[in-house]
Amino acid sequence: MPHLPKRVFILEEGPREGFQIEKGPIATARKIELIDALSDTGLKQIQIVSFVDPRRVPGMADAEEVVAGISPRPGVLYTGLWLNERGFERARATGRLDMRGTIVAGASSTFLKRNQNRTIDEQLDAQRALAQRYGSLGIPVTRGGVMAAFGCNYEGEIPVARVVSLVGEILAIARDHGVTLDYVSFADTMGWATPLAVKRLIGAAQDAYPEMEWALHLHDTRGLGLANAYAGLEMGVARFDAAVAGLGGCPFAGNAGAAGNVCTEDLVFMCAEMGIETGIDLERLIDCARLAEDIVGHSLPGAVKIGGSLARLRAAMTSA
Amino acid sequence: MPHLPKRVFILEEGPREGFQIEKGPIATARKIELIDALSDTGLKQIQIVSFVDPRRVPGMADAEEVVAGISPRPGVLYTGLWLNERGFERARATGRLDMRGTIVAGASSTFLKRNQNRTIDEQLDAQRALAQRYGSLGIPVTRGGVMAAFGCNYEGEIPVARVVSLVGEILAIARDHGVTLDYVSFADTMGWATPLAVKRLIGAAQDAYPEMEWALHLHDTRGLGLANAYAGLEMGVARFDAAVAGLGGCPFAGNAGAAGNVCTEDLVFMCAEMGIETGIDLERLIDCARLAEDIVGHSLPGAVKIGGSLARLRAAMTSA
Repeated sequence: MPHLPKRVFILEEGPREGFQIEKGPIATARKIELIDALSDTGLKQIQIVSFVDPRRVPGMADAEEVVAGISPRPGVLYTGLWLNERGFERARATGRLDMRGTIVAGASSTFLKRNQNRTIDEQLDAQRALAQRYGSLGIPVTRGGVMAAFGCNYEGEIPVARVVSLVGEILAIARDHGVTLDYVSFADTMGWATPLAVKRLIGAAQDAYPEMEWALHLHDTRGLGLANAYAGLEMGVARFDAAVAGLGGCPFAGNAGAAGNVCTEDLVFMCAEMGIETGIDLERLIDCARLAEDIVGHSLPGAVKIGGSLARLRAAMTSA
Repeated sequence: MPHLPKRVFILEEGPREGFQIEKGPIATARKIELIDALSDTGLKQIQIVSFVDPRRVPGMADAEEVVAGISPRPGVLYTGLWLNERGFERARATGRLDMRGTIVAGASSTFLKRNQNRTIDEQLDAQRALAQRYGSLGIPVTRGGVMAAFGCNYEGEIPVARVVSLVGEILAIARDHGVTLDYVSFADTMGWATPLAVKRLIGAAQDAYPEMEWALHLHDTRGLGLANAYAGLEMGVARFDAAVAGLGGCPFAGNAGAAGNVCTEDLVFMCAEMGIETGIDLERLIDCARLAEDIVGHSLPGAVKIGGSLARLRAAMTSA
């Protein structure tokens, strides 16, 4: 039988992933309502906004107001995403976010060009500049990441060797700036991963860097999100990004049907039913998923919010 | 790296699973249209109707007309489902179905009582009577099955030992009637399975009956359908029931949100992308999934029909 982690850490990205892609407009107050509800579920980190060009991502134009409006709960990290120094300075200026630096490479030059108008090397240069800035401000840098680590809608399969080599570049940047990363995340930005591909990439990464911890950022574009997460669990992966109700999708992934992240409550359900702790209250999270649907005004992909938890059925049996 | 089967066999159950639960009414001609379209995808077996009490399952009242109306394609088996001798005789009277006997046990007495008004032992007695009848008519009996093999909305978890013991009962009935089963299928009728539970049950069954082949009938009620299928593949399972577009759900499972079977085109996609042959044309199957949505008049759960296949993206890259 497989050896699964005892506990997994889930980074909730629904507010950032979701509200950046919804045709909207979604009222700032409702974004805040969802973030505050998520704060009561036991989640330990919520990525709540991105600081990007509002002309390109109008759904994030109110990022500062969202940050100003939430009611932070002790023990929860509230983080943001940025792609360049301008975005970083906006995040820092809020004075209310838990500032965490990341070093992020991209494995597809075509995707990077469309997403951030950079080549793979220009992306790495930008990470060096950011790492320098984080160091000078004493901001912790804990996460590395590789975007489009499995495949790209413009370039096809991404070779495992290229991704492992980019991990090397990320670790070199970290070393050059005196930083020790906690983990490196592989993003299936465009929904190309399969369980077998997850096992191959994680296996190769573990072979190359046995001391490092690995994370997965999975999209459910073609229905394999949870199967891919399970494959990750079997490889010992214990960190996942996820989005409540399966909110999200990338506006620059070149696919009108690009689905959101793997759904947080479905992932929490799968973990809980296999005896893996997440520290998250599934029933409260299901309530958040229904709230998310109400906020975006259309149905969202998560299954457990429809099928219901098994804990609730078990409780009904006991009381019957 | 995992050792996966080279080829899997998929039994399409969408027309039977789907049209029995849709609030309908759905025109007989449209049911026939979907079955005929599925016949052109490379599927080798399609379960097209059930012969059950039309007062309890009004969506199957036109079973005979559906069978009479299809245009059978050589090389495709067209099968039906029945729960008793009356249903069997109706199926046989059509004269157009590929008659295949099954020996089916149920692991939850409460579910059996609601679904078929029988105890576990009465269900086994009914199977003996049917096996007798199949034998006297020379009808092949190739499949065993255990319903509610993972858990039950009324009884909770089903112990692995009970399921393995029921396999023993099934094999004893087969032996008593001179039948050698090709395989035994475990049905997650109410969506309780996890990948870990799949591995545990298949592992225990393989230990007890090393010569037998195993199959999975999975529902996607809580989003784990494909993760469970993947766990089965890793255990060497090479036979799956599935429903195009994720049609279906059981009307007697005691859960308003009971989702349908694992989605055929998503399963075919997962297999194809991991190098496992199914013999099925994914693009044609996606067209069938869209047709199924048009017929039922609402959206259905499959993901690949929205996200699109990767083969199509690869072809676009090559021609660009």
